[in-house]
Amino acid sequence: MAVRTARTAWNGSVSEGSGQVELTSSGTGTFDVSFPRREAETADGVTSPEELIGAALSSCYSMQLSALLGGAGATVVALEVTADVTFAADPAGGFHIPSVALTVRGEVEGIDAEGFRKTAEEAKATCPVSKALTGTTITLDATVES
Amino acid sequence: MAVRTARTAWNGSVSEGSGQVELTSSGTGTFDVSFPRREAETADGVTSPEELIGAALSSCYSMQLSALLGGAGATVVALEVTADVTFAADPAGGFHIPSVALTVRGEVEGIDAEGFRKTAEEAKATCPVSKALTGTTITLDATVES
Repeated sequence: MAVRTARTAWNGSVSEGSGQVELTSSGTGTFDVSFPRREAETADGVTSPEELIGAALSSCYSMQLSALLGGAGATVVALEVTADVTFAADPAGGFHIPSVALTVRGEVEGIDAEGFRKTAEEAKATCPVSKALTGTTITLDATVES
Repeated sequence: MAVRTARTAWNGSVSEGSGQVELTSSGTGTFDVSFPRREAETADGVTSPEELIGAALSSCYSMQLSALLGGAGATVVALEVTADVTFAADPAGGFHIPSVALTVRGEVEGIDAEGFRKTAEEAKATCPVSKALTGTTITLDATVES
């Protein structure tokens, strides 16, 4: 069992205030966040909860796919996993994350295109971050070059 | 509607390989990740999907709580939101994230302890990242000094 900690220090109102989010366990960084920047069309150098969700999912998914491909007898040379996370008004009120689009490009030996696609779907179903994110819809576009 | 992107470049097997996770939209950082480090007791300077989930939730929750407190007529001076994210073997197979513990300390004017506690619970239920993380259990410990 492993526990990891992150922390946000926030000052002020949601519209005028801002925060600093810290990767506490690793000490790898502290980043500014604000609501106006979060809902703006461009990030403009500022991270957001959605970008951080994308980082969590893309890194978790990479590990899970690598594990499943290895278990299937394939050899992973390289995987590139991109997560596009959408933030929008929620028809039920407030805001929500309606969808996360995963795009996976693999350079893998010992598996064909159909086997890769099936394994990529299985990784989406079984990666620990996917299993936690059941309140949003994750889509997958997976291709391999052997 | 806002879309934010993160990307992981992974090389090799799950046990021997490693990846780099990039906060692509903001350009605020690229971080090493590995599975052995992820499941180790200490982070030892390396981030993980769980730490990134904690960063996403603590920053989202801070904004939501600030918004709800403002809507209730209170004035937020400062909030400190800590997220402890647990990674463990899943009884159903593989690994999972069984729980996330949120600890909230507020310095807020114009609300009493019970009003703060209720608002903190409402923020947990309505924050967009909470609403996406329905596959794990989020607990809350919230206290205020007025």
